[in-house]
Amino acid sequence: MDLHPMWVSGFVDGEGTFYVGVNRNTTMTIGYQVLPEFRVVQHQKDVQLLFKLKRFFSSGVVRKNHEDRMELRIRKLDALQDIVIPFFETNPLQTQKKHDFIKFAKIVRFISQGSHLTRNGLIEIIDVASQMNRADKQKTLLIREQLLKTAAG
Amino acid sequence: MDLHPMWVSGFVDGEGTFYVGVNRNTTMTIGYQVLPEFRVVQHQKDVQLLFKLKRFFSSGVVRKNHEDRMELRIRKLDALQDIVIPFFETNPLQTQKKHDFIKFAKIVRFISQGSHLTRNGLIEIIDVASQMNRADKQKTLLIREQLLKTAAG
Repeated sequence: MDLHPMWVSGFVDGEGTFYVGVNRNTTMTIGYQVLPEFRVVQHQKDVQLLFKLKRFFSSGVVRKNHEDRMELRIRKLDALQDIVIPFFETNPLQTQKKHDFIKFAKIVRFISQGSHLTRNGLIEIIDVASQMNRADKQKTLLIREQLLKTAAG
Repeated sequence: MDLHPMWVSGFVDGEGTFYVGVNRNTTMTIGYQVLPEFRVVQHQKDVQLLFKLKRFFSSGVVRKNHEDRMELRIRKLDALQDIVIPFFETNPLQTQKKHDFIKFAKIVRFISQGSHLTRNGLIEIIDVASQMNRADKQKTLLIREQLLKTAAG
C-alpha cells in the first residue's frame, strides 16, 4: 500500500532530519562546500519502509547509517528543490523541526541561485545553517569566522 | 490548526510507544498488576504539540518524562479501548511498531474482559506482553515464571 502524504509528514516530523553540512573542500575555489541533505534513519528491521519512502519521493539512496541503523538520504539538489521542499510546504511539519525545514529550504534556494559560490553568499548560507538545530554548531561558527577573516583580508 | 489523522499516525509511528507494564502489587489478590499505556515523549520545546495530541485523543495527561522531556500518557482503559485502539486500526502504523500495537490491543481487550484477574488469564497476558519490544523483557519473563510456579503449587 502506498504511503499517505500526511503520514509521511508526521513520520518525518518525528524521524527526519534536515541538515546542511559545511565542510572544508580545497578543490573548490572558495575552499568550502555546502551540502544540504534530507535524511530518515531507521533500525534495519524497518529498511523496507525506507525503500517505500525512497519510492514516495522518487529520489534518494538507502544505505547503512551506523551499526544496526539504515538511512534514506536525499542530496540531489533538483530532488530537494522540486520534490522534497514542495512536499513539506504542502504537508507541513507540526513540531519545532518546521523551523529547521524553513532554513533548509532557504539554503537550498540560495544554492540553486549560485550564492554558495561567492564568499558573501557562503557567509549568508552559514549564518542560516548555524541557526539550525545541529550537533556541529561550534564547527559551523568557526568556519563562518574563518570566512569573515578572509573576506576582510 | 487541527492535526490530520494520518499525520498523527505517522508521528506516533516514529515517536509513540505502546507499553504494557507488569508490576508486583500486593494490594491485588493475584499479586500483580497489568498496566497498558500509550505514550508520546517530546522535548519540552514541543509540549504544545503534546497538548494538541491530548485534545486530538480527548484523553491523557501531559507530564514531565525525564529531564527536559515531556510526555503525553494515556492509561484510562476506556480511552485506550474506545479511542486510541480504534484510531490506529483505522489509520494504521507502517513500521514494525504495528506488531507491538496489535499485541497492545489484544492485551487491552483481555483486561476489559477481566482476564487479568485470574492467574491463567494473567499468564496469557504476560505471554503476549513479553513478545513486545521492551526494555524490561527479562523482568517480565521472571514474573511469568513466578506465576507459573504458584499456579502449579
